[in-house]
Amino acid sequence: MPRSTFSGSVTSPKVDIIVDLGNPFLNLTVDGFLKIGTVAATKVAAEEAYSIVKRGSVSHHNFEHSLKKMCKEGAYWGTVAGVYVGMEYGFERIRGTRDWKNAMLGGALTGALISAACNNGRDKIVTDAIAGGAVATAAEFLNYLT
Amino acid sequence: MPRSTFSGSVTSPKVDIIVDLGNPFLNLTVDGFLKIGTVAATKVAAEEAYSIVKRGSVSHHNFEHSLKKMCKEGAYWGTVAGVYVGMEYGFERIRGTRDWKNAMLGGALTGALISAACNNGRDKIVTDAIAGGAVATAAEFLNYLT
Repeated sequence: MPRSTFSGSVTSPKVDIIVDLGNPFLNLTVDGFLKIGTVAATKVAAEEAYSIVKRGSVSHHNFEHSLKKMCKEGAYWGTVAGVYVGMEYGFERIRGTRDWKNAMLGGALTGALISAACNNGRDKIVTDAIAGGAVATAAEFLNYLT
Repeated sequence: MPRSTFSGSVTSPKVDIIVDLGNPFLNLTVDGFLKIGTVAATKVAAEEAYSIVKRGSVSHHNFEHSLKKMCKEGAYWGTVAGVYVGMEYGFERIRGTRDWKNAMLGGALTGALISAACNNGRDKIVTDAIAGGAVATAAEFLNYLT
């Protein structure tokens, strides 16, 4: 297995595109979108690279499909991250404190919004809000631990 | 909808159980297990509370099922978090630096380990490792943003 190619491609990307829109809320959202979108695109690229390595052949069709998938997953993860970062920042401003409750509320609202945008029913929206809040809280806690 | 009961139960839990095993690696792992396990158990509790509110009735059977689900999900999330926190700490010690690459490597190894423990095939293990690394990297980036 050509592992060296793998790790080489993973350490190279430097994410430092800075877009200033003159508003901290918008800046954070766009920054979250770009950074997390890049992570998701890299994830898909790694998956596709593994599937190519496994099969041992590269066809034109597959490459185009991979690119499309990278864009789709990148945009999806980026949107979720952008909404979440914006929400957390908003809650921080509204509540005036920085703690895990901002993450929980931001995660819950993001889960509900994304779920509502995907045309889900009321029950699914509530479940997604709970799951979003839990995942955001867990990430925040892990953060304090390490 | 009795929303007040909902938010009341969410703000109350205080997670400050401290277990000292005399070893930073073990301490982190146990801490991660307990904290994230609690978050997952709270998530299931919130979900079950919503389903009870929706149906409007509480039966004995359902309560027992909820408790079992809380334990199961709590243990699963807790294990993943414990393994991840331990791995990230390990990579920090080995590499001697603190950056997002620790999170990526820790997430990838955690994904592979949990996947292997669930008796998945080789392809699924690699995919889970890639997904774990991506999720951990995304969480780490979000962290720097907020």
